[in-house]
Amino acid sequence: MAGNSFGKLFNLTTFGESHGTALGGIIDGCPSGLTLDIEAIQKELNRRKPGQSEIVTQRKEPDTVQFLSGIFEGKTTGTSIGFIIENANQKSKDYSHIKDVYRPSHADYTYDQKYGIRDYRGGGRSSARETACRVVAGAIAKQLLKDVKIHAFVSSVGDIFLEKPYQELDFNLIESNIVRCPDEAVAERMINRIKEIRKEGDTIGGTVTCVIQNVPAGLGEPVFDKLHAELGKAMLSINAVKGFEYGSGFCGAKMKGSEHNDIFNADGSTKTNLSGGVQGGISNGMDIYFRVAFKPVATIMQNQETIDSEGHVVEMHGKGRHDPCVVPRAVPIVEAMAALVIADYLLQNKVTKL
Amino acid sequence: MAGNSFGKLFNLTTFGESHGTALGGIIDGCPSGLTLDIEAIQKELNRRKPGQSEIVTQRKEPDTVQFLSGIFEGKTTGTSIGFIIENANQKSKDYSHIKDVYRPSHADYTYDQKYGIRDYRGGGRSSARETACRVVAGAIAKQLLKDVKIHAFVSSVGDIFLEKPYQELDFNLIESNIVRCPDEAVAERMINRIKEIRKEGDTIGGTVTCVIQNVPAGLGEPVFDKLHAELGKAMLSINAVKGFEYGSGFCGAKMKGSEHNDIFNADGSTKTNLSGGVQGGISNGMDIYFRVAFKPVATIMQNQETIDSEGHVVEMHGKGRHDPCVVPRAVPIVEAMAALVIADYLLQNKVTKL
Amino acid sequence: MAGNSFGKLFNLTTFGESHGTALGGIIDGCPSGLTLDIEAIQKELNRRKPGQSEIVTQRKEPDTVQFLSGIFEGKTTGTSIGFIIENANQKSKDYSHIKDVYRPSHADYTYDQKYGIRDYRGGGRSSARETACRVVAGAIAKQLLKDVKIHAFVSSVGDIFLEKPYQELDFNLIESNIVRCPDEAVAERMINRIKEIRKEGDTIGGTVTCVIQNVPAGLGEPVFDKLHAELGKAMLSINAVKGFEYGSGFCGAKMKGSEHNDIFNADGSTKTNLSGGVQGGISNGMDIYFRVAFKPVATIMQNQETIDSEGHVVEMHGKGRHDPCVVPRAVPIVEAMAALVIADYLLQNKVTKL
Amino acid sequence: MAGNSFGKLFNLTTFGESHGTALGGIIDGCPSGLTLDIEAIQKELNRRKPGQSEIVTQRKEPDTVQFLSGIFEGKTTGTSIGFIIENANQKSKDYSHIKDVYRPSHADYTYDQKYGIRDYRGGGRSSARETACRVVAGAIAKQLLKDVKIHAFVSSVGDIFLEKPYQELDFNLIESNIVRCPDEAVAERMINRIKEIRKEGDTIGGTVTCVIQNVPAGLGEPVFDKLHAELGKAMLSINAVKGFEYGSGFCGAKMKGSEHNDIFNADGSTKTNLSGGVQGGISNGMDIYFRVAFKPVATIMQNQETIDSEGHVVEMHGKGRHDPCVVPRAVPIVEAMAALVIADYLLQNKVTKL
Repeated sequence: MAGNSFGKLFNLTTFGESHGTALGGIIDGCPSGLTLDIEAIQKELNRRKPGQSEIVTQRKEPDTVQFLSGIFEGKTTGTSIGFIIENANQKSKDYSHIKDVYRPSHADYTYDQKYGIRDYRGGGRSSARETACRVVAGAIAKQLLKDVKIHAFVSSVGDIFLEKPYQELDFNLIESNIVRCPDEAVAERMINRIKEIRKEGDTIGGTVTCVIQNVPAGLGEPVFDKLHAELGKAMLSINAVKGFEYGSGFCGAKMKGSEHNDIFNADGSTKTNLSGGVQGGISNGMDIYFRVAFKPVATIMQNQETIDSEGHVVEMHGKGRHDPCVVPRAVPIVEAMAALVIADYLLQNKVTKL
Repeated sequence: MAGNSFGKLFNLTTFGESHGTALGGIIDGCPSGLTLDIEAIQKELNRRKPGQSEIVTQRKEPDTVQFLSGIFEGKTTGTSIGFIIENANQKSKDYSHIKDVYRPSHADYTYDQKYGIRDYRGGGRSSARETACRVVAGAIAKQLLKDVKIHAFVSSVGDIFLEKPYQELDFNLIESNIVRCPDEAVAERMINRIKEIRKEGDTIGGTVTCVIQNVPAGLGEPVFDKLHAELGKAMLSINAVKGFEYGSGFCGAKMKGSEHNDIFNADGSTKTNLSGGVQGGISNGMDIYFRVAFKPVATIMQNQETIDSEGHVVEMHGKGRHDPCVVPRAVPIVEAMAALVIADYLLQNKVTKL
Repeated sequence: MAGNSFGKLFNLTTFGESHGTALGGIIDGCPSGLTLDIEAIQKELNRRKPGQSEIVTQRKEPDTVQFLSGIFEGKTTGTSIGFIIENANQKSKDYSHIKDVYRPSHADYTYDQKYGIRDYRGGGRSSARETACRVVAGAIAKQLLKDVKIHAFVSSVGDIFLEKPYQELDFNLIESNIVRCPDEAVAERMINRIKEIRKEGDTIGGTVTCVIQNVPAGLGEPVFDKLHAELGKAMLSINAVKGFEYGSGFCGAKMKGSEHNDIFNADGSTKTNLSGGVQGGISNGMDIYFRVAFKPVATIMQNQETIDSEGHVVEMHGKGRHDPCVVPRAVPIVEAMAALVIADYLLQNKVTKL
Repeated sequence: MAGNSFGKLFNLTTFGESHGTALGGIIDGCPSGLTLDIEAIQKELNRRKPGQSEIVTQRKEPDTVQFLSGIFEGKTTGTSIGFIIENANQKSKDYSHIKDVYRPSHADYTYDQKYGIRDYRGGGRSSARETACRVVAGAIAKQLLKDVKIHAFVSSVGDIFLEKPYQELDFNLIESNIVRCPDEAVAERMINRIKEIRKEGDTIGGTVTCVIQNVPAGLGEPVFDKLHAELGKAMLSINAVKGFEYGSGFCGAKMKGSEHNDIFNADGSTKTNLSGGVQGGISNGMDIYFRVAFKPVATIMQNQETIDSEGHVVEMHGKGRHDPCVVPRAVPIVEAMAALVIADYLLQNKVTKL
């Protein structure tokens, strides 16, 4: 109820502050009998973790997941799966300077307004460090999905766009560069842009595109819980996200029906896919694809004017080790949330028909 | 669970097919003691109903809401509010031609894939007629919101955009024209565009922008149930929606942190509002604004090739009375869903602090 | 959230006051493709309805259910099923005498304390009339259950007990008498007792026993949602219920482990069944049986002292047409709630194993 | 969904097997600003823990709770509270003898039927060890309740009953003896009875009574989520519980309305309290009291015939260190569950009225 749970049948509840003892979560509803590849889970966490390359924050966190329950002799037992990730590198003293200061475009002010108290160390619960738990659960969901393949990649950094349609991309190249863009030339430009920005003590936004393939037709629930509505919520719940579009998206709003309609082939597939794999909130068996907009990270290494908790104007200067651009590390998070949504609907679909 | 409910504390569950006996819903969780203005509720329904102007479908439906429970001597009693809207003008024979045909970019195919059966008359449950129930509940939510003001308007039709920032608009003009664009000159161009498109037997997409004012700081729940994530889900659940962005949105993804950060005034308000009134998923007291993309209506009055349920290719021609552009009628639906989200978070916020 | 919904996957939400326009509900999550026997549903309603025999209230209500959605050509479509039952015989004037009076052991006082307002006509939402909607949904659940058989019957009225173990009863006799006790001799004594009590202007309590047969092993969820815990909640939510026990029940609390343990047969069945068909919250394939205690109806045809809403002591005399004993009409309600619980767990069980 | 969560607004989700690495849970929805007395929480855990006296299991577990999040500088922050309890004394080898054997009246068989796999060590998830997490959350709920006082005590062991009505008891005596019965003479008989039973290698059932005082009128939600229905579910979800009754309970089913009705005093209190503090599912401000029946522990130190997972009949003899009677340790669990229910309804009640 208080916002720390996601999913109906494959449910994740998480806890943990950026600089507390540990983060963690409980996965409730994972079917029994799934042989878990723990190494693959850790590998997903490593794709998200800080310090992985020169264009992300240089904070060092091992981000090692420990499973405490729900797994027996390598298999899920159907009972709740508890896990924790210890916060190794807390360095709380780094954050004393923001104890009474509201950082611009962070959640310091709103948490104080909402709760009357906040763990100010590193953003506390509002820190994107929380997403590590999503990646753990998403990695398990991925193993449940089997044939369904989820590929996210960076499709823009600032005004540098990957223009090619996703059908022309080789998803095997996503992990071949540190920005996670499956086009070497564009990736290089993105990387250079991020390095420039970092030198300026600034940050920059970007977009992540995600493609989900081999989803059977029939997933999603009509009316309020449409497949794309839940995907949209999942993505918008990731820190720094400002927008979501699927299929034709905002471009579709400029089109005519005669241009936009996807004409069927005899087998039920469609000749075009402006629908983005979803019609009436339910998957139609075509690729599902969507795009997620991330704002620039709010912490910049420049002087900014702001206020303290008493309303005094103060000057602040960003400290600590922060990402100049969030999208390279957001890729596994987008995939994880997509996996959670699809896994949930796959389970829900088992009770749809007699 | 099966997708027909929305909201946690202010909860709406709906039922009803386009051509069944009636649509209706249950609102559970409306606080007791609210004096309801029933006329105001019907007025919202009238803003959504077919046949209201020359640029919308000419179908005739009175769309009169009848309340069956939960209201006593003009006030809510705290018990569940049941209501129905009868389907007066069903004309089921109009739809026999689509009994075995899957209309392109409609939900016919996906419903059949999901359920193995579908009420094919007028799209059945997948029809946007379902949104009438949302408007009823949203109108009640609006009455609960008191000072919070929600204004949606058409911000584009095809490639005709209302370029002015919302701060320069007079929301009183929204209802002054049939397209619901608060700028007379732009509205006229939009109306003409829709008339042209209708003559072509085609349809066109558009966008709706919504501004929510006087929201107290502190609404929204962190992590998965961020205020904008729930707003996004609410909007994406409306028929024909392809995208959602709030605050800086997709433009924000091109910006630098030094440009994007909203600097505080001493009173906690911000000098700019690229955040769109939400920071870390929680309202900060500034205006909340977002934009919703609607695809062109799939039913066009032109010949289209499609398939029947046995996979045979057939020629079909749109029949019936359909909207050439959905956005004028979508305005009250967007407002209704926004009202439901805000009302729910207002209630949730009552249990946040000791 | 506000208490008008029951069930996770097979979900019922209801509305309606005793003397409002209509009662009704929405069933969300009924799988598609179920051929509904509407007559059988009405038959269950008739078992609950007032005026059915000389030992129940003589109020006349046709209690005819009308389905508004979710059914097409005789089958469920998988979309939400809306239904209403009109209140034909409202006679609101009968209730003006209790407008400002709190009837002893009714919910008048507590509703006023909770909501600050109440629909005083016939108890409003607190009336057991609400259970008609449960019977509708339970009747649909029964049709989903197929082989699972649910039989409830009256096992005591006051101090007249049906002593035989359920295994010795012929469930076909339940409907053979108006008190619904499957033993003619005991039934006759019960009926006479109720007639006596009615003559005294008094009321009397009783118990209903329920046996659920052919439940497959494996239903129920561990920890908080144990099968018997949910059954218990379902029964305790019925008006006038004061207690619930299953299997050995309160007698089990006097026993030794060596007496109480159910020893297995080679096929997994057990030689005894003190467990009541549930072990660790999960069905084991044996008969599930439980007993539900109902207090005497609070409205009596005698003078009682009570208070009005201003705290003045007043004399009141029961009016209207009330049941002298609730258990004969409670039998179909107990069965309906049991059916809802089992149907829900059958669906939940489809997502348990890989 | 899969049964490991309890509560709507004050929500607890738990994980952990008897012999896994750790048990734990997440409390979501605890309001911010509550100063937590951590010592008091540990004290409640100590009331439940094994080895605390000579009449309970002699297993040694420190049962120390560690909080990982949601608390900052001694206060709750409003974010999710994660906690773990390590399993110190796992002794897994003790359980190899039951790897392929289904213990009578345990959940071994049903877990295997449900999940196709089970962690057989010490009962795995079905072990009552799981209730330690409930005690942690309940102890926090208690601190939220302030004036509301919850007292549970042992009211019977086998056929030894505490006959006095609760109004004549001194709750301060509950912790003065190891069986937790607030009457020294009866307590001594109970203790002797348990010692005898243990010597026989047997176990015995019992009941726990619980009294909740100072509950404000108005708590509970009508229809399905009646206060006593939720209390009933909470209690029935505790391991080994077979029955629940509140107020007059099963005795009420033998009474007449003229005897059972609680007549009002001018201040809204009632002269008698057969209702048990709840009318129409909503608290009326009087004491809430109920009784919970526990069966005898299934593990006995005697030879029993049973079957293995292949259906072969085998002889087994209880091993390990088990409770001869569960009720002394059940007292804090009953209180914890009651506290969770009341805390949740207190929060729910904040959104009831305008």
